[in-house]
Amino acid sequence: MVLTMGELARALDAQCWGDQSIRVTGAAEPAAVGPVDADGGTLAMAMAPKYAEALKPGSIAILAEGMDPEAYGLKAAIFAPRPRLVMAGLTRAFDRGPDIAPGIHPTAVIDPTATIGDGAAIAPFVVIGAHVRIGQGARIGAHVSIGRGARIGDQALIHPGVRIGHDVTAGDRLIVQPGASIGGDGFSFVTPEESGIEEIRRTLGARAAVNQQHWTRIHSLGAVELGHDVEIGANATIDRGTIRSTRVGDGTKIDNLVMLGHNVVVGRDCLLCSQVGVAGSSVIGDRVVLAGQVGVNDNIQIGDDVIAGGAAKIFTRVPAGRVILGNPAVKMETQLEIQKAMRRLPRFAQQLSKLQETVTRLLEKG
Amino acid sequence: MVLTMGELARALDAQCWGDQSIRVTGAAEPAAVGPVDADGGTLAMAMAPKYAEALKPGSIAILAEGMDPEAYGLKAAIFAPRPRLVMAGLTRAFDRGPDIAPGIHPTAVIDPTATIGDGAAIAPFVVIGAHVRIGQGARIGAHVSIGRGARIGDQALIHPGVRIGHDVTAGDRLIVQPGASIGGDGFSFVTPEESGIEEIRRTLGARAAVNQQHWTRIHSLGAVELGHDVEIGANATIDRGTIRSTRVGDGTKIDNLVMLGHNVVVGRDCLLCSQVGVAGSSVIGDRVVLAGQVGVNDNIQIGDDVIAGGAAKIFTRVPAGRVILGNPAVKMETQLEIQKAMRRLPRFAQQLSKLQETVTRLLEKG
Amino acid sequence: MVLTMGELARALDAQCWGDQSIRVTGAAEPAAVGPVDADGGTLAMAMAPKYAEALKPGSIAILAEGMDPEAYGLKAAIFAPRPRLVMAGLTRAFDRGPDIAPGIHPTAVIDPTATIGDGAAIAPFVVIGAHVRIGQGARIGAHVSIGRGARIGDQALIHPGVRIGHDVTAGDRLIVQPGASIGGDGFSFVTPEESGIEEIRRTLGARAAVNQQHWTRIHSLGAVELGHDVEIGANATIDRGTIRSTRVGDGTKIDNLVMLGHNVVVGRDCLLCSQVGVAGSSVIGDRVVLAGQVGVNDNIQIGDDVIAGGAAKIFTRVPAGRVILGNPAVKMETQLEIQKAMRRLPRFAQQLSKLQETVTRLLEKG
Repeated sequence: MVLTMGELARALDAQCWGDQSIRVTGAAEPAAVGPVDADGGTLAMAMAPKYAEALKPGSIAILAEGMDPEAYGLKAAIFAPRPRLVMAGLTRAFDRGPDIAPGIHPTAVIDPTATIGDGAAIAPFVVIGAHVRIGQGARIGAHVSIGRGARIGDQALIHPGVRIGHDVTAGDRLIVQPGASIGGDGFSFVTPEESGIEEIRRTLGARAAVNQQHWTRIHSLGAVELGHDVEIGANATIDRGTIRSTRVGDGTKIDNLVMLGHNVVVGRDCLLCSQVGVAGSSVIGDRVVLAGQVGVNDNIQIGDDVIAGGAAKIFTRVPAGRVILGNPAVKMETQLEIQKAMRRLPRFAQQLSKLQETVTRLLEKG
Repeated sequence: MVLTMGELARALDAQCWGDQSIRVTGAAEPAAVGPVDADGGTLAMAMAPKYAEALKPGSIAILAEGMDPEAYGLKAAIFAPRPRLVMAGLTRAFDRGPDIAPGIHPTAVIDPTATIGDGAAIAPFVVIGAHVRIGQGARIGAHVSIGRGARIGDQALIHPGVRIGHDVTAGDRLIVQPGASIGGDGFSFVTPEESGIEEIRRTLGARAAVNQQHWTRIHSLGAVELGHDVEIGANATIDRGTIRSTRVGDGTKIDNLVMLGHNVVVGRDCLLCSQVGVAGSSVIGDRVVLAGQVGVNDNIQIGDDVIAGGAAKIFTRVPAGRVILGNPAVKMETQLEIQKAMRRLPRFAQQLSKLQETVTRLLEKG
Repeated sequence: MVLTMGELARALDAQCWGDQSIRVTGAAEPAAVGPVDADGGTLAMAMAPKYAEALKPGSIAILAEGMDPEAYGLKAAIFAPRPRLVMAGLTRAFDRGPDIAPGIHPTAVIDPTATIGDGAAIAPFVVIGAHVRIGQGARIGAHVSIGRGARIGDQALIHPGVRIGHDVTAGDRLIVQPGASIGGDGFSFVTPEESGIEEIRRTLGARAAVNQQHWTRIHSLGAVELGHDVEIGANATIDRGTIRSTRVGDGTKIDNLVMLGHNVVVGRDCLLCSQVGVAGSSVIGDRVVLAGQVGVNDNIQIGDDVIAGGAAKIFTRVPAGRVILGNPAVKMETQLEIQKAMRRLPRFAQQLSKLQETVTRLLEKG
């Protein structure tokens, strides 16, 4: 895609300085960008002053507000009022995405009862089951399988090797990265007699005799329901619910290798970063952010707007709006105090022991 | 599948109250269930009193013992003596599972030396290597690959996109969720000279000069052996052993995104929850439960009937029957005491410092 | 593959004792090895004295230096000066690897503009996009997809179900285990207004009013660049960079279920063990070892030769050569002291409280 500087600035709703007619052929780090030539040039991404020293005279750039394009000898510049937001528009403009040829590849195996919307692009070796409904403009990569009765909205982009189980539903603009599995069976088992886990939950850790236990599967009759504008990361897994469906709300983005257990409910506009695990039946509010490797125990409630720091392990209910950290996760400020105290702990131990000696001597004297 | 209430109760070995001839067409949460009609109805799952208020008159339900079906105006009810166990039977009765058409799909590429048992259903684009043997009644989903010499028992259900490496063996009733990899190569490397890791293991942390190190692979000549009734979760990975096989015992269930390293041995009837990682050559006993995100260091022994709480990190041998928690994992009651003390740690620090001042004053006075 | 003991010893650059003409048909644990017969025998792996008691007279073995083959009644023995290194050569000699038939399977869908090197073996249902270049001797397993413009060096071994995105590049001798995804889109989003995360990063935890936030994707214009001799584990994921590529240096080995976020740079000859997660834009030096389940926060610098123990969570810059452990990760010796003190913490609490009473009594007396 090629735009002029002026067109790009208008698309980004940003100000343009200099020659608006220069054609922009791509974007790169300042060090990789040379001067423009007759065909145009690559836009240097210099949205903070620290990136500016690598800018070359005669080039074009995107700058933070307040930076001076003349000082760098630029030919043209776009000013980004909120740099990361401009970045979103800019990268979208130049992202060609994966190649999936328009139409349905002749190797695809599509059940005759399935409905594929207009403008779909379906890659080689895709398998689509009975009664599946896929919206308009879907792009479905190689080796994707979509089970019986699944329904996917308009403008989906499903990367290669994704597994969508039967009866899974998704809204519009679904994006699924390679290898994700949506709609595997829940991990739900029962023993004929009380199991060791049930016992320690009841007794808070005490155990009587340990028994044989043979696990019987509780099947998953529910499916998975994804809202509009949901994204799912590479090799992430979302299990189906037991009786009702596992659910993910509109606008929620899920990163690579995340696991959502059976019956989990995630609200709207959440970010679940890489390797997060949410165990069965937990409920997560709206606009919640779970950083990488966060774990959520089963049957936990997490309120709206909670933010959990990296690798926080959540064992108890979290009220709305709280920022938490640690294992077990507590309020961030508490955790930072605990960490500070922990680092001083070996010294405490020495101080305490010295103090005990002193007091003992005082007592003896007394 | 449609059963009458009487048939379903007999299948579940449970008592039935009311009109045993009503046909049951499915199961759902009480709020989603209306009264039965001439074709039958959906069974409301109300196996605890808290679910009862959503029950509607004229419907059918499954109740906990002691609940009164007349009080809710039900037409018929089944009583569950151990609700989760009844749930297993009930969900199995209504689970249609994935659609895999009987017979071998014409696109499947099956080596002529492979043996496929009677009644198999093999989906499109499956690839099966030389000398593979697959038992009776196997259902193998789309895009599965099974390497040379692998042997799978009867009644397997292998979901789409599963990777089974060469020479892997599994017993009967194997279930593998989408995208799992069984039989990748172990992560085992060596440097020509002693590596930094070997040095710190030897010296417990001290390091002399840091050297160049170039890693050479130790190949995996072993395979993976899975017992009967094993289940493997979506996108889980089990690596092959170096000389002998990595092994998983009968009845053990493994959840999504779990990693078992090379040479690991897992006993019978274990539950390994999501995102558990077990490093190379560790040995896990029978009936062990590892909750989500538990980590087991390499070369560790875990006794029978151990239960490890969520995100426990296990660095040392664990005796049989112990319940453990924390990082590093210790006995659960010890960990809970540590956590309590940790939360009070900032206050300790203040108290200690105040006490030091007091004692200093006492000494000065003395 | 069959070698004589003499040939094998020479291949391993090791000493051979006894009958060098005996043919070696494989390698196994000593307990599984019987005496040699006219066709040769299996080599017993007994590279430490503890394995020696299972050796049987008349068999062949590989021993540690200083062990006496006559004492065990062996027919021939190879002495391993550095056992694990010999193991590398030995297992390589006997590893047949996966079966991928030479040539290009007729079901593979290969864009006419792609270039496949001499001697390639391409399995069924592989999909290769436009302008892809693959080196000589590549072996590519079933159901692999390789996107437009990707370039893979010579002698690659790509196991089944691997996803390689467009424009990804890799050097020679690349090995990718099943199901890995290289080149998914980065997890990078922005809100029109300051998001909760940005706010707490700025304020270190304090939050004003909580706002609506709707996430807009920042697309990934970069790709992934892998050096020579890189290995990637099963179901691991490496995301593409935003503007420049995510990079992994020569000789670095990455285990199963590892996640590398967008823009991450990993140096040469590193080992990243299973389930490690490295968040966006972090930079890792050369010869770094991250044990299983280690987490690295975003935008962190980790120096050369750092070793991080199992499940260490790294939130701050780590200087070169440091050995670290814990959550948050600190120097290993500090962490071991902290852990010791933590275990004594409940006792500290009692001691402190007793001391307070004593001092109070002293004060009252005084």
